[in-house]
Amino acid sequence: MASGVACGLKEDGALDLALLSASPRPVAGAAVFTTNLAAAAPVKVSQEHLERSGGAVGAVVLNSGGANAATGPRGLLDAQQTCEVVASCLGIKAQEVLVCSTGLIGVPLAIGRIKKAIPALCEALGSTPNDATKAATAIMTTDTHPKEVLVKASGFSVGGMVKGAGMIAPNMATMLAMLTTDAEISPSDLKTALSSGVSQSFNELIVDNCTSTNDTVVLLASGAAGPVALGELSDAVGECCGLLAREIAKDAEGTTKMATIRILGAKSKGDARRCARGVAASLLVKTSLYGADPYWGRIISELGASGAAFSPDTVRIAYGTTDVVRFGTEIPHDRDAVRSYLEGKEIEITCDLGLGSDEAQVLTTDLGHGYIDENMRTS
Amino acid sequence: MASGVACGLKEDGALDLALLSASPRPVAGAAVFTTNLAAAAPVKVSQEHLERSGGAVGAVVLNSGGANAATGPRGLLDAQQTCEVVASCLGIKAQEVLVCSTGLIGVPLAIGRIKKAIPALCEALGSTPNDATKAATAIMTTDTHPKEVLVKASGFSVGGMVKGAGMIAPNMATMLAMLTTDAEISPSDLKTALSSGVSQSFNELIVDNCTSTNDTVVLLASGAAGPVALGELSDAVGECCGLLAREIAKDAEGTTKMATIRILGAKSKGDARRCARGVAASLLVKTSLYGADPYWGRIISELGASGAAFSPDTVRIAYGTTDVVRFGTEIPHDRDAVRSYLEGKEIEITCDLGLGSDEAQVLTTDLGHGYIDENMRTS
Repeated sequence: MASGVACGLKEDGALDLALLSASPRPVAGAAVFTTNLAAAAPVKVSQEHLERSGGAVGAVVLNSGGANAATGPRGLLDAQQTCEVVASCLGIKAQEVLVCSTGLIGVPLAIGRIKKAIPALCEALGSTPNDATKAATAIMTTDTHPKEVLVKASGFSVGGMVKGAGMIAPNMATMLAMLTTDAEISPSDLKTALSSGVSQSFNELIVDNCTSTNDTVVLLASGAAGPVALGELSDAVGECCGLLAREIAKDAEGTTKMATIRILGAKSKGDARRCARGVAASLLVKTSLYGADPYWGRIISELGASGAAFSPDTVRIAYGTTDVVRFGTEIPHDRDAVRSYLEGKEIEITCDLGLGSDEAQVLTTDLGHGYIDENMRTS
Repeated sequence: MASGVACGLKEDGALDLALLSASPRPVAGAAVFTTNLAAAAPVKVSQEHLERSGGAVGAVVLNSGGANAATGPRGLLDAQQTCEVVASCLGIKAQEVLVCSTGLIGVPLAIGRIKKAIPALCEALGSTPNDATKAATAIMTTDTHPKEVLVKASGFSVGGMVKGAGMIAPNMATMLAMLTTDAEISPSDLKTALSSGVSQSFNELIVDNCTSTNDTVVLLASGAAGPVALGELSDAVGECCGLLAREIAKDAEGTTKMATIRILGAKSKGDARRCARGVAASLLVKTSLYGADPYWGRIISELGASGAAFSPDTVRIAYGTTDVVRFGTEIPHDRDAVRSYLEGKEIEITCDLGLGSDEAQVLTTDLGHGYIDENMRTS
């Protein structure tokens, strides 16, 4: 069940307040939050609620139009009051309500408008696709469209919505992702499935390598479809998170394409990840992607600077299926084909370090004029 | 003594080959090289020469128009041969010659042109300011002008030239910096003075946070001015490196301003550095600088994500001399004054963490359309 209303946080009267619930009574819930030590008030309140309720979640209330971060004690009070008003409308406990905010940091919320709109928000809760889309729209900031996905597994399904377009880095993105499933599963298994899904998706996504103050991923399980094996649920949650991460990359602020950086042949998993993140976060690599410029020298330089074990004598680099570097130096290849491959919207760059058998991959985006235009001024 | 000639590595016939020497006989020399594991051939050859000669350096030969990186065994041979031809012209040993290259990665050097031009390059060695400027010009890549500084200390002086405008990150920049002094000092003290100077300057400079394959800083000491105390020399070398680092920041690829990120009140020196680098490397902070947008929320978010001990409750943030945040939230301040301060060419941002007494600072640049234009295509 979902709903979305306009309460006046956004100046243009767009939808800006959303509510999600998996069932009229609280259900098993799990969440992953930002690791940023400047975590926003809603993150702190939600963490505390989840702990106090032992993973029982009746609803999640979300607002765009303000991050409620760096807002001091008043921010904490605002987040807490939001939960209390929702709880009172739905007849559940405040600790069974989670709260998420997104928007500019440092600006206090117009809490009066939120409180005033909550009864109508609760009233509007519905289970049609239109209700879900309204909620997905109400959490948008610089997103250009609502982002929803559905994964159908055997006997149950996992649905998700996400907002996020900037401040996107591993651990995690500036993003709010809400997942629901009808699987029946214990809160602790639910947490396992969610952590595994996040680590394979949102934590392997880099837009600008900035870790936000508000990141939150929530998974609610209604149990309506009956018991499900943990492995099956983990797979479905992982798939759902992966699809949502791709939606973020596709709609990332001012970008024109996305690229998967695949590292093969690393000495360790940690090394593979360091290389993938080093290449994926590189301003020079991202700017080359924007210009469709096959300058692999920047890639080899990032591999060498990543901190991972690396030898230029064993490395192979390919754009798509075309090898351009073997044993650390350029080999003859069809330059025009590579250049036109790089003009595409989805690029794959493979770096085989030739040192072991560990692998990793990270999804990244290009860096071009659109990103500058979108981020150079916020007010 | 210095010289610069055009040997045909650059297509436009510009100066592209330089030679530096502190004295007709080899003198004490020290160097700091890139930590990139994809280090270029000239870096490897210079490291080996410096080790074999015990820090005796007769000359440094430098070329722009090609990095000689990711060029395999042929690249090593080319770097070695360059040293041999210079040594033979100057009547010194090959191991007393260091070699530096800068330009595109992955393209073999036109070594025939270099070898052919070396006799004229050695012949042209001279000690006028014009000779030095020719050398400083011959090492330019995307630099818009030659960069030279002179530090006069009591009884001796330290002169320096540098090239570098992109791929600039701590440990170190894509840059070649050549320093000479007439101080008399042992090779081991010389190394100490250089390391200390580099750590206070080039290692506290971030343009795009990319660590290049070719970074090299060389310091040669002729001894002509007689013995000098290590402390005095370190101070002068540090000052010289600092001035050169500022020259790089001022001329950084496609940027419009530079900013010093000062961290105060950190729990440890490492924490102070982590915070300074996190803020200085942030795409969102750099894009805000470009737009002269006083969005301090991005700064507090980077502090929280830096990995350092941090509390939003104690942090103070100032643009120039104007405090905008105290105890983690915005305080009343003159917004127009801050905005017009941010329109300037040299910005200072102070973050007092309020947790201890350690400090650090990093010099950074903005990120705007010019950077994209300069880096989106290399060919």
